[in-house]
Amino acid sequence: MCAPDQISDRPSPLQDGSRLARQIGFIVEIDRLKHILRQTLVMDGSRRENDAEHSWHIAVMVMVLAEYAATDVSVARVLRMLLIHDLVEIDAGDTFVYDAAGLRDQAERERRAADRIFGLLPSDQGAELRALWDEFEERRTPDALFARAIDVMQPLLHNYHTQGGTWRQHGVTPDRVRARKSAIAAASPRLWDYARHVIEDAVRRGYLAEA
Amino acid sequence: MCAPDQISDRPSPLQDGSRLARQIGFIVEIDRLKHILRQTLVMDGSRRENDAEHSWHIAVMVMVLAEYAATDVSVARVLRMLLIHDLVEIDAGDTFVYDAAGLRDQAERERRAADRIFGLLPSDQGAELRALWDEFEERRTPDALFARAIDVMQPLLHNYHTQGGTWRQHGVTPDRVRARKSAIAAASPRLWDYARHVIEDAVRRGYLAEA
Repeated sequence: MCAPDQISDRPSPLQDGSRLARQIGFIVEIDRLKHILRQTLVMDGSRRENDAEHSWHIAVMVMVLAEYAATDVSVARVLRMLLIHDLVEIDAGDTFVYDAAGLRDQAERERRAADRIFGLLPSDQGAELRALWDEFEERRTPDALFARAIDVMQPLLHNYHTQGGTWRQHGVTPDRVRARKSAIAAASPRLWDYARHVIEDAVRRGYLAEA
Repeated sequence: MCAPDQISDRPSPLQDGSRLARQIGFIVEIDRLKHILRQTLVMDGSRRENDAEHSWHIAVMVMVLAEYAATDVSVARVLRMLLIHDLVEIDAGDTFVYDAAGLRDQAERERRAADRIFGLLPSDQGAELRALWDEFEERRTPDALFARAIDVMQPLLHNYHTQGGTWRQHGVTPDRVRARKSAIAAASPRLWDYARHVIEDAVRRGYLAEA
Protein backbone atom coordinates (compact mmCIF):
# COMPACT_ATOMS: atom_id res chain seq x y z
CA MET A 1 0.00 0.00 0.00
CA CYS A 2 2.83 2.36 0.81
CA ALA A 3 6.05 1.50 -0.97
CA PRO A 4 9.12 3.48 0.20
CA ASP A 5 9.38 5.31 -3.11
CA GLN A 6 5.90 6.71 -2.63
CA ILE A 7 6.74 8.36 0.67
CA SER A 8 8.35 11.34 -0.99
CA ASP A 9 5.18 12.00 -3.04
CA ARG A 10 3.14 12.65 0.04
CA PRO A 11 2.73 16.40 0.68
CA SER A 12 5.20 17.27 3.40
CA PRO A 13 4.22 19.68 6.18
CA LEU A 14 6.18 22.25 4.21
CA GLN A 15 3.88 22.04 1.24
CA ASP A 16 0.28 21.84 2.36
CA GLY A 17 -0.62 25.23 0.91
CA SER A 18 -1.38 26.85 4.28
CA ARG A 19 -0.38 30.38 5.20
CA LEU A 20 2.36 29.02 7.45
CA ALA A 21 3.63 26.68 4.73
CA ARG A 22 4.04 29.66 2.37
CA GLN A 23 5.87 31.60 5.05
CA ILE A 24 8.23 28.70 5.71
CA GLY A 25 8.70 28.32 1.96
CA PHE A 26 9.92 31.93 1.88
CA ILE A 27 12.21 31.31 4.84
CA VAL A 28 13.74 28.30 3.11
CA GLU A 29 14.14 30.15 -0.19
CA ILE A 30 15.96 33.13 1.30
CA ASP A 31 18.67 30.83 2.65
CA ARG A 32 20.21 31.40 -0.79
CA LEU A 33 21.24 34.91 0.28
CA LYS A 34 24.10 33.18 2.12
CA HIS A 35 25.61 32.35 -1.27
CA ILE A 36 25.40 35.82 -2.82
CA LEU A 37 28.93 37.15 -2.61
CA ARG A 38 29.67 40.84 -2.41
CA GLN A 39 32.86 42.51 -3.58
CA THR A 40 33.67 43.46 -0.01
CA LEU A 41 36.08 41.32 1.97
CA VAL A 42 35.45 40.32 5.57
CA MET A 43 37.64 42.36 7.89
CA ASP A 44 40.48 39.86 8.19
CA GLY A 45 40.71 39.90 4.39
CA SER A 46 40.40 36.11 4.11
CA ARG A 47 37.39 35.94 1.78
CA ARG A 48 34.49 37.86 0.28
CA GLU A 49 31.52 38.64 2.45
CA ASN A 50 28.06 37.41 1.55
CA ASP A 51 24.78 39.31 1.62
CA ALA A 52 23.41 37.53 4.70
CA GLU A 53 26.49 38.46 6.72
CA HIS A 54 26.36 42.03 5.43
CA SER A 55 22.67 42.33 6.28
CA TRP A 56 23.28 41.12 9.83
CA HIS A 57 26.24 43.45 10.30
CA ILE A 58 24.43 46.61 9.18
CA ALA A 59 21.43 45.71 11.34
CA VAL A 60 23.65 45.67 14.43
CA MET A 61 25.27 48.91 13.22
CA VAL A 62 21.84 50.53 13.26
CA MET A 63 21.27 49.37 16.84
CA VAL A 64 24.54 50.99 17.85
CA LEU A 65 24.60 54.13 15.67
CA ALA A 66 20.95 55.20 15.53
CA GLU A 67 21.68 58.04 17.95
CA TYR A 68 23.52 59.83 15.15
CA ALA A 69 20.55 59.99 12.77
CA ALA A 70 19.92 63.62 11.74
CA THR A 71 16.18 63.21 12.07
CA ASP A 72 14.05 60.93 14.20
CA VAL A 73 14.10 57.45 12.75
CA SER A 74 12.27 54.31 13.79
CA VAL A 75 15.01 51.83 14.64
CA ALA A 76 12.52 48.98 14.27
CA ARG A 77 11.58 50.01 10.72
CA VAL A 78 15.20 50.60 9.70
CA LEU A 79 16.13 47.16 11.03
CA ARG A 80 13.31 45.50 9.12
CA MET A 81 14.24 47.40 5.98
CA LEU A 82 17.88 46.41 6.13
CA LEU A 83 17.20 42.77 6.98
CA ILE A 84 15.32 42.36 3.68
CA HIS A 85 16.97 45.00 1.48
CA ASP A 86 19.28 42.58 -0.32
CA LEU A 87 16.88 39.68 -0.86
CA VAL A 88 16.40 40.72 -4.49
CA GLU A 89 20.04 39.83 -5.10
CA ILE A 90 19.11 36.14 -4.79
CA ASP A 91 17.84 36.52 -8.37
CA ALA A 92 19.51 39.73 -9.54
CA GLY A 93 22.98 39.10 -8.09
CA ASP A 94 25.22 41.64 -6.42
CA THR A 95 26.01 44.57 -8.69
CA PHE A 96 29.37 46.14 -7.90
CA VAL A 97 28.72 49.78 -7.12
CA TYR A 98 31.54 51.04 -9.29
CA ASP A 99 30.46 48.95 -12.33
CA ALA A 100 28.55 51.32 -14.65
CA ALA A 101 27.46 48.58 -17.07
CA GLY A 102 25.97 46.39 -14.37
CA LEU A 103 24.18 49.33 -12.83
CA ARG A 104 22.29 50.10 -16.05
CA ASP A 105 19.69 47.32 -15.89
CA GLN A 106 20.03 46.71 -12.14
CA ALA A 107 16.75 48.39 -11.24
CA GLU A 108 14.70 46.31 -13.66
CA ARG A 109 16.40 43.04 -12.63
CA GLU A 110 15.79 43.83 -8.98
CA ARG A 111 12.14 44.74 -9.54
CA ARG A 112 11.49 41.38 -11.16
CA ALA A 113 13.30 39.66 -8.30
CA ALA A 114 11.18 41.52 -5.74
CA ASP A 115 8.02 40.39 -7.55
CA ARG A 116 9.05 36.78 -7.31
CA ILE A 117 10.63 36.66 -3.86
CA PHE A 118 8.11 38.74 -1.89
CA GLY A 119 5.43 36.95 -3.94
CA LEU A 120 6.31 33.71 -2.14
CA LEU A 121 4.70 35.09 1.03
CA PRO A 122 0.98 35.33 1.81
CA SER A 123 -0.18 38.38 -0.14
CA ASP A 124 -0.71 40.73 2.82
CA GLN A 125 2.73 40.02 4.20
CA GLY A 126 4.39 40.04 0.79
CA ALA A 127 2.88 43.47 0.10
CA GLU A 128 4.08 44.78 3.44
CA LEU A 129 7.69 43.70 2.90
CA ARG A 130 7.59 44.83 -0.71
CA ALA A 131 6.48 48.30 0.39
CA LEU A 132 9.36 48.39 2.84
CA TRP A 133 11.79 47.42 0.08
CA ASP A 134 10.32 50.03 -2.30
CA GLU A 135 10.72 52.64 0.41
CA PHE A 136 14.37 51.68 0.87
CA GLU A 137 14.99 51.85 -2.88
CA GLU A 138 13.31 55.24 -3.27
CA ARG A 139 15.48 56.78 -0.55
CA ARG A 140 13.17 59.59 0.38
CA THR A 141 11.94 58.93 3.93
CA PRO A 142 14.18 59.53 6.96
CA ASP A 143 14.14 55.79 7.74
CA ALA A 144 15.22 54.88 4.20
CA LEU A 145 17.93 57.55 4.12
CA PHE A 146 19.42 56.39 7.40
CA ALA A 147 19.22 52.75 6.32
CA ARG A 148 21.06 53.66 3.15
CA ALA A 149 23.71 55.59 5.06
CA ILE A 150 24.53 52.55 7.19
CA ASP A 151 24.44 50.29 4.12
CA VAL A 152 27.22 52.32 2.47
CA MET A 153 29.13 53.03 5.69
CA GLN A 154 29.77 49.34 6.39
CA PRO A 155 31.86 48.55 3.26
CA LEU A 156 33.82 51.75 3.90
CA LEU A 157 34.92 50.27 7.23
CA HIS A 158 35.67 46.95 5.54
CA ASN A 159 37.78 48.51 2.82
CA TYR A 160 39.65 50.59 5.37
CA HIS A 161 40.36 47.57 7.57
CA THR A 162 41.51 45.44 4.64
CA GLN A 163 44.08 48.07 3.59
CA GLY A 164 42.03 49.17 0.61
CA GLY A 165 40.37 45.84 -0.18
CA THR A 166 38.17 46.18 -3.25
CA TRP A 167 39.23 49.81 -3.87
CA ARG A 168 42.71 48.61 -4.76
CA GLN A 169 41.49 45.61 -6.73
CA HIS A 170 39.32 47.82 -8.91
CA GLY A 171 41.41 50.99 -8.91
CA VAL A 172 38.66 53.05 -7.32
CA THR A 173 39.67 56.67 -6.72
CA PRO A 174 39.02 58.83 -3.61
CA ASP A 175 36.60 61.06 -5.53
CA ARG A 176 34.40 58.14 -6.47
CA VAL A 177 34.41 56.88 -2.90
CA ARG A 178 33.51 60.36 -1.60
CA ALA A 179 30.68 60.64 -4.12
CA ARG A 180 29.38 57.20 -3.25
CA LYS A 181 29.59 57.67 0.49
CA SER A 182 28.01 61.12 0.43
CA ALA A 183 24.72 59.27 0.94
CA ILE A 184 25.74 59.38 4.57
CA ALA A 185 25.81 63.19 4.71
CA ALA A 186 22.08 63.93 4.64
CA ALA A 187 21.21 61.10 7.02
CA SER A 188 23.88 61.82 9.60
CA PRO A 189 26.34 64.74 9.57
CA ARG A 190 28.25 63.14 12.45
CA LEU A 191 28.74 59.81 10.65
CA TRP A 192 29.59 61.66 7.45
CA ASP A 193 32.26 63.61 9.27
CA TYR A 194 33.66 60.32 10.55
CA ALA A 195 33.46 58.71 7.10
CA ARG A 196 35.39 61.61 5.57
CA HIS A 197 38.12 61.11 8.14
CA VAL A 198 38.30 57.43 7.26
CA ILE A 199 38.59 58.27 3.56
CA GLU A 200 41.31 60.86 4.22
CA ASP A 201 43.22 58.44 6.38
CA ALA A 202 42.86 55.74 3.71
CA VAL A 203 44.37 58.13 1.17
CA ARG A 204 47.21 59.02 3.55
CA ARG A 205 47.98 55.35 4.14
CA GLY A 206 47.85 54.56 0.42
CA TYR A 207 44.78 52.31 0.68
CA LEU A 208 43.01 54.59 -1.74
CA ALA A 209 44.90 56.26 -4.58
CA GLU A 210 44.30 58.69 -7.41
CA ALA A 211 44.09 57.03 -10.86
CA MET B 1 59.71 65.13 9.71
CA CYS B 2 57.18 62.51 8.82
CA ALA B 3 58.73 59.32 7.57
CA PRO B 4 56.35 56.79 6.01
CA ASP B 5 56.86 54.34 8.85
CA GLN B 6 55.56 56.91 11.32
CA ILE B 7 52.26 57.34 9.56
CA SER B 8 50.79 54.25 11.11
CA ASP B 9 51.61 55.50 14.63
CA ARG B 10 49.32 58.47 14.30
CA PRO B 11 45.95 57.85 16.01
CA SER B 12 43.51 56.98 13.24
CA PRO B 13 39.94 58.32 13.31
CA LEU B 14 39.03 54.88 14.61
CA GLN B 15 41.06 55.29 17.76
CA ASP B 16 40.60 58.78 19.17
CA GLY B 17 38.79 57.54 22.29
CA SER B 18 35.49 59.23 21.46
CA ARG B 19 32.11 57.64 22.02
CA LEU B 20 31.76 57.05 18.27
CA ALA B 21 35.24 55.54 18.05
CA ARG B 22 34.31 52.99 20.71
CA GLN B 23 31.09 52.16 18.89
CA ILE B 24 32.94 51.66 15.62
CA GLY B 25 35.52 49.57 17.47
CA PHE B 26 32.69 47.28 18.56
CA ILE B 27 31.33 47.13 15.01
CA VAL B 28 34.76 46.17 13.68
CA GLU B 29 35.27 43.55 16.39
CA ILE B 30 31.97 41.77 15.82
CA ASP B 31 32.93 41.11 12.21
CA ARG B 32 34.53 37.99 13.69
CA LEU B 33 31.07 36.46 14.12
CA LYS B 34 31.26 35.70 10.38
CA HIS B 35 33.97 33.13 11.17
CA ILE B 36 32.17 31.29 13.96
CA LEU B 37 30.90 28.12 12.34
CA ARG B 38 27.84 26.32 13.59
CA GLN B 39 27.19 22.61 13.19
CA THR B 40 24.23 23.38 10.94
CA LEU B 41 24.69 23.19 7.19
CA VAL B 42 23.29 25.85 4.85
CA MET B 43 20.22 24.51 3.09
CA ASP B 44 21.94 23.32 -0.07
CA GLY B 45 24.23 21.23 2.17
CA SER B 46 27.39 22.70 0.66
CA ARG B 47 29.00 24.00 3.85
CA ARG B 48 28.47 24.88 7.50
CA GLU B 49 26.60 28.02 8.36
CA ASN B 50 28.20 30.77 10.42
CA ASP B 51 26.70 32.72 13.30
CA ALA B 52 26.27 35.96 11.35
CA GLU B 53 24.25 34.19 8.66
CA HIS B 54 22.21 32.38 11.31
CA SER B 55 21.52 35.62 13.18
CA TRP B 56 20.31 37.31 10.02
CA HIS B 57 18.11 34.36 9.07
CA ILE B 58 16.33 34.11 12.42
CA ALA B 59 15.78 37.87 12.46
CA VAL B 60 13.89 37.64 9.16
CA MET B 61 12.02 34.61 10.53
CA VAL B 62 10.79 36.77 13.39
CA MET B 63 9.54 39.41 10.95
CA VAL B 64 7.56 36.71 9.11
CA LEU B 65 6.41 34.48 11.98
CA ALA B 66 5.70 36.92 14.83
CA GLU B 67 1.97 36.51 14.27
CA TYR B 68 2.22 33.02 15.78
CA ALA B 69 3.60 34.13 19.14
CA ALA B 70 1.37 32.85 21.95
CA THR B 71 1.56 36.13 23.83
CA ASP B 72 2.11 39.68 22.67
CA VAL B 73 5.77 40.17 21.83
CA SER B 74 7.65 43.25 20.75
CA VAL B 75 9.04 42.40 17.33
CA ALA B 76 11.56 45.21 17.66
CA ARG B 77 12.94 43.85 20.95
CA VAL B 78 13.01 40.26 19.68
CA LEU B 79 14.91 41.41 16.59
CA ARG B 80 17.46 43.29 18.67
CA MET B 81 17.84 40.33 21.00
CA LEU B 82 18.47 37.87 18.19
CA LEU B 83 20.85 40.14 16.30
CA ILE B 84 23.22 40.16 19.28
CA HIS B 85 22.43 36.80 20.95
CA ASP B 86 25.40 34.95 19.46
CA LEU B 87 28.08 37.64 19.85
CA VAL B 88 29.47 35.86 22.90
CA GLU B 89 30.47 32.98 20.62
CA ILE B 90 33.23 35.19 19.19
CA ASP B 91 35.13 34.29 22.37
CA ALA B 92 33.26 31.24 23.65
CA GLY B 93 32.80 29.44 20.33
CA ASP B 94 29.73 27.57 19.16
CA THR B 95 28.78 24.78 21.55
CA PHE B 96 27.00 21.93 19.79
CA VAL B 97 23.63 21.54 21.48
CA TYR B 98 23.90 17.77 21.75
CA ASP B 99 27.42 17.89 23.26
CA ALA B 100 26.99 17.40 27.03
CA ALA B 101 30.66 18.05 27.87
CA GLY B 102 30.79 21.34 25.99
CA LEU B 103 27.55 22.47 27.59
CA ARG B 104 28.95 22.11 31.12
CA ASP B 105 31.10 25.24 31.23
CA GLN B 106 29.30 27.03 28.40
CA ALA B 107 27.48 29.49 30.67
CA GLU B 108 30.67 30.66 32.37
CA ARG B 109 32.59 30.99 29.10
CA GLU B 110 29.75 32.99 27.61
CA ARG B 111 29.45 35.30 30.61
CA ARG B 112 33.10 36.20 30.36
CA ALA B 113 32.69 36.80 26.64
CA ALA B 114 29.69 39.08 27.26
CA ASP B 115 31.76 41.10 29.75
CA ARG B 116 34.46 41.69 27.19
CA ILE B 117 32.42 42.19 24.04
CA PHE B 118 29.62 44.42 25.35
CA GLY B 119 32.32 46.17 27.38
CA LEU B 120 33.78 47.52 24.14
CA LEU B 121 30.80 49.86 23.83
CA PRO B 122 30.21 53.11 25.74
CA SER B 123 28.99 51.97 29.15
CA ASP B 124 25.32 53.03 28.77
CA GLN B 125 24.99 51.22 25.48
CA GLY B 126 27.02 48.21 26.60
CA ALA B 127 24.76 47.84 29.64
CA GLU B 128 21.66 48.07 27.47
CA LEU B 129 22.79 45.33 25.09
CA ARG B 130 24.09 43.21 27.95
CA ALA B 131 20.68 43.41 29.65
CA LEU B 132 19.06 42.29 26.41
CA TRP B 133 21.48 39.36 26.16
CA ASP B 134 20.89 38.41 29.82
CA GLU B 135 17.15 38.49 29.19
CA PHE B 136 17.57 36.18 26.21
CA GLU B 137 19.70 33.78 28.24
CA GLU B 138 17.27 33.70 31.18
CA ARG B 139 14.37 32.76 28.92
CA ARG B 140 11.63 34.06 31.12
CA THR B 141 10.00 37.01 29.36
CA PRO B 142 7.63 36.50 26.40
CA ASP B 143 10.13 38.27 24.10
CA ALA B 144 12.99 35.99 25.19
CA LEU B 145 10.87 32.84 24.91
CA PHE B 146 9.75 33.70 21.40
CA ALA B 147 13.30 34.64 20.38
CA ARG B 148 14.49 31.29 21.69
CA ALA B 149 11.72 29.42 19.84
CA ILE B 150 12.82 30.93 16.53
CA ASP B 151 16.49 30.30 17.37
CA VAL B 152 15.83 26.54 17.69
CA MET B 153 13.27 26.36 14.88
CA GLN B 154 15.75 27.51 12.24
CA PRO B 155 18.24 24.61 12.53
CA LEU B 156 15.26 22.21 12.51
CA LEU B 157 14.39 23.51 9.04
CA HIS B 158 18.04 23.29 8.01
CA ASN B 159 18.42 19.70 9.18
CA TYR B 160 15.18 18.72 7.47
CA HIS B 161 16.22 20.33 4.18
CA THR B 162 19.66 18.76 4.26
CA GLN B 163 18.17 15.25 4.64
CA GLY B 164 19.14 15.02 8.28
CA GLY B 165 22.29 17.13 8.15
CA THR B 166 23.95 17.23 11.54
CA TRP B 167 21.41 14.81 13.08
CA ARG B 168 22.84 12.04 10.92
CA GLN B 169 26.44 13.11 11.41
CA HIS B 170 26.07 12.94 15.18
CA GLY B 171 23.51 10.14 15.48
CA VAL B 172 20.98 12.39 17.18
CA THR B 173 17.72 10.59 17.99
CA PRO B 174 14.14 11.84 17.49
CA ASP B 175 13.56 12.02 21.26
CA ARG B 176 16.50 14.34 21.76
CA VAL B 177 15.33 16.55 18.92
CA ARG B 178 11.80 16.66 20.37
CA ALA B 179 13.17 17.56 23.80
CA ARG B 180 15.39 20.25 22.36
CA LYS B 181 12.74 21.76 20.14
CA SER B 182 10.07 21.73 22.83
CA ALA B 183 11.29 25.27 23.63
CA ILE B 184 8.98 26.21 20.78
CA ALA B 185 5.86 24.86 22.53
CA ALA B 186 5.39 27.52 25.19
CA ALA B 187 6.21 30.39 22.85
CA SER B 188 4.01 29.30 19.99
CA PRO B 189 1.67 26.28 19.95
CA ARG B 190 1.13 26.77 16.19
CA LEU B 191 4.87 26.68 15.39
CA TRP B 192 5.34 23.77 17.77
CA ASP B 193 2.62 21.84 15.96
CA TYR B 194 4.43 22.55 12.72
CA ALA B 195 7.81 21.58 14.19
CA ARG B 196 6.41 18.25 15.39
CA HIS B 197 5.17 17.54 11.87
CA VAL B 198 8.63 18.29 10.50
CA ILE B 199 10.22 15.93 13.04
CA GLU B 200 7.71 13.17 12.25
CA ASP B 201 8.28 13.60 8.55
CA ALA B 202 12.04 13.52 9.10
CA VAL B 203 11.68 10.20 10.94
CA ARG B 204 9.46 8.81 8.16
CA ARG B 205 12.00 9.81 5.54
CA GLY B 206 14.88 8.36 7.52
CA TYR B 207 16.57 11.74 8.12
CA LEU B 208 16.27 11.12 11.84
CA ALA B 209 16.63 7.63 13.28
CA GLU B 210 16.44 5.85 16.63
CA ALA B 211 19.84 4.92 18.06
